[in-house]
Amino acid sequence: MTIEFPPVEPPSETARLEAVKRHAVLTKPVGSLGKLEELGAWVAACQGECPPRPFTRPRVVVFAGDHGVSRKGVSAYPREVTGQMVANFLTGGAAVNVLANVAGATVRVVDVSVDSDTAVQEHKVRRGSGSIDTEDALTADEAEQAVNLGRKLADDEVDGGADLLIAGDMGIGNTTPAAVLIAALTGSEPVAVVGRGTGIDDRGWMRKTAAIRDALRRARPVLGQPLRLLATSAGADIAATAGFLAQAAIRRTPVILDGVVVGAAAVVAEELAPGAREWWVAGHRSAEPSHALALGHLGLEPLLDFDMRLGEGSGAVAALPLVVMATRILAEMATFEGAGVSGPR
Amino acid sequence: MTIEFPPVEPPSETARLEAVKRHAVLTKPVGSLGKLEELGAWVAACQGECPPRPFTRPRVVVFAGDHGVSRKGVSAYPREVTGQMVANFLTGGAAVNVLANVAGATVRVVDVSVDSDTAVQEHKVRRGSGSIDTEDALTADEAEQAVNLGRKLADDEVDGGADLLIAGDMGIGNTTPAAVLIAALTGSEPVAVVGRGTGIDDRGWMRKTAAIRDALRRARPVLGQPLRLLATSAGADIAATAGFLAQAAIRRTPVILDGVVVGAAAVVAEELAPGAREWWVAGHRSAEPSHALALGHLGLEPLLDFDMRLGEGSGAVAALPLVVMATRILAEMATFEGAGVSGPR
Repeated sequence: MTIEFPPVEPPSETARLEAVKRHAVLTKPVGSLGKLEELGAWVAACQGECPPRPFTRPRVVVFAGDHGVSRKGVSAYPREVTGQMVANFLTGGAAVNVLANVAGATVRVVDVSVDSDTAVQEHKVRRGSGSIDTEDALTADEAEQAVNLGRKLADDEVDGGADLLIAGDMGIGNTTPAAVLIAALTGSEPVAVVGRGTGIDDRGWMRKTAAIRDALRRARPVLGQPLRLLATSAGADIAATAGFLAQAAIRRTPVILDGVVVGAAAVVAEELAPGAREWWVAGHRSAEPSHALALGHLGLEPLLDFDMRLGEGSGAVAALPLVVMATRILAEMATFEGAGVSGPR
Repeated sequence: MTIEFPPVEPPSETARLEAVKRHAVLTKPVGSLGKLEELGAWVAACQGECPPRPFTRPRVVVFAGDHGVSRKGVSAYPREVTGQMVANFLTGGAAVNVLANVAGATVRVVDVSVDSDTAVQEHKVRRGSGSIDTEDALTADEAEQAVNLGRKLADDEVDGGADLLIAGDMGIGNTTPAAVLIAALTGSEPVAVVGRGTGIDDRGWMRKTAAIRDALRRARPVLGQPLRLLATSAGADIAATAGFLAQAAIRRTPVILDGVVVGAAAVVAEELAPGAREWWVAGHRSAEPSHALALGHLGLEPLLDFDMRLGEGSGAVAALPLVVMATRILAEMATFEGAGVSGPR
């Protein structure tokens, strides 16, 4: 049971420094665009050139899957919603579709492990992952298959022209494995990672905390082995997301991270391919408490703090226009010299 | 010396409640889009209907003017930059032009009080406002003329089809009057409101603090008379901005506020037309320390916290896609019933 990613090369420090220099000659005080300047320099570094090219194909891939633990009463919604929402993505009715339309991104949804038939199941790894509080989510083979699916999806998108990637999630119950993965890899207690998810009540919260506690006990022995950890405590959808995020870095393609489920996959992806995090920016901070732990662990500062907790990639897509703006500032603003504007005294 | 605004009517509470109800039947957990849901409800309330109509003409008006106090060494940039930047806006090379292109807004720049000739000076009130540390910024007539110019510009834009307004500023030295107005109306000390502006050094900071202290002494006697306060301590550009923001509320048109200079105008506009603030949302929190005081005084929470300090409307335009997204979520997402998705258990 092994998956090997080649070493991750960092974004270009040369291009980043060129961007910093360019920011100093654009018609604005140095630093006056704050985080937009840092973001633009990061995009230049990822593209390896300054000014960076405007994005032509930002792409969202939503990884859908069911989770056995959802039968333990950890979610406010019934299990069949996962498959129903897959259909909703395909007809453009979900939040991420609307947000992507505004932001100029396109959305693909992939059924990785939905426990019902869907129109996009050609890559299905299994029907629902195991209930991680009492059993493994996946076999070793399935975990490898799922990570490789994520890698392949990233490759397909980049080969198809995608120049910025966003991963999204859809799966009733999926904040439970996300919380377990984050707790395991950041050394946190169950009560520090449990959240309300889609909106569970107090009794549901107690059931969820118990499930996380039991799952965490099963996760700890395999902490140092990321692929085994995915098999034990994630699910095929999250494993595929981890492979996707790692491969995006291998393919030198910038990523905007979404909320807690993608954040959990990112924490594992950084274990699979150390340094991958330099290719990612955090779109937002979710209302789920464990998300801040994941971002802190990865050393990422969120762009938005909007109290969102939907998943689907929605928080990342909400932040996409800011990344586009940061990129186009470097590409399109006039210089002091070009515009005949005096610099500082 | 009087200017009377009719009473400001609040946004529609009926439409806001309809939006809250609609959010509960869209295919997502209630509240899961966080601040995007609140924003969407605010837009519906401003438009008086739910779902709200997508914006067709978001419009930025940049108010340009020079300030006598800039001769006191309170800015890192020379005075001629104001006029040079007006030309840069007109050729599309400034930051706000680039950001507006991404966000789907158009930009107009108006020379209210630039101390040089520009191509957009048909409404010029005067050439540079007075140095507020030692003299009045404007005569009583000029203050009235400037506020009425802002009202007229808001009317013209709304009559021309603008359905969302953003005010921007351009003027070397303008964070000094902004800090004075905010300190005066929030009861703050000079050291609590002085900031680095475009990036002054320590000696400039001391000069700026002294200028604010002296100007504040001149402002205090006219605190209760907003038009006189504008004449004493603002400048024609800021007075026009205040008139613009107040009139937007009278015309029931939503506004995204920018940084500290527009924030100062907003604090005065709320005095001129109480209740106008309900028609405004705060685009961002500027790096200028007095901006947070202004937002707190107005009871507004910023959408972005990006450490920006450029002005021009840049921080408001950066937040515009979020307002657009919030609006289109209500207009375009599927309902649970329409999409055949099960609701919570």
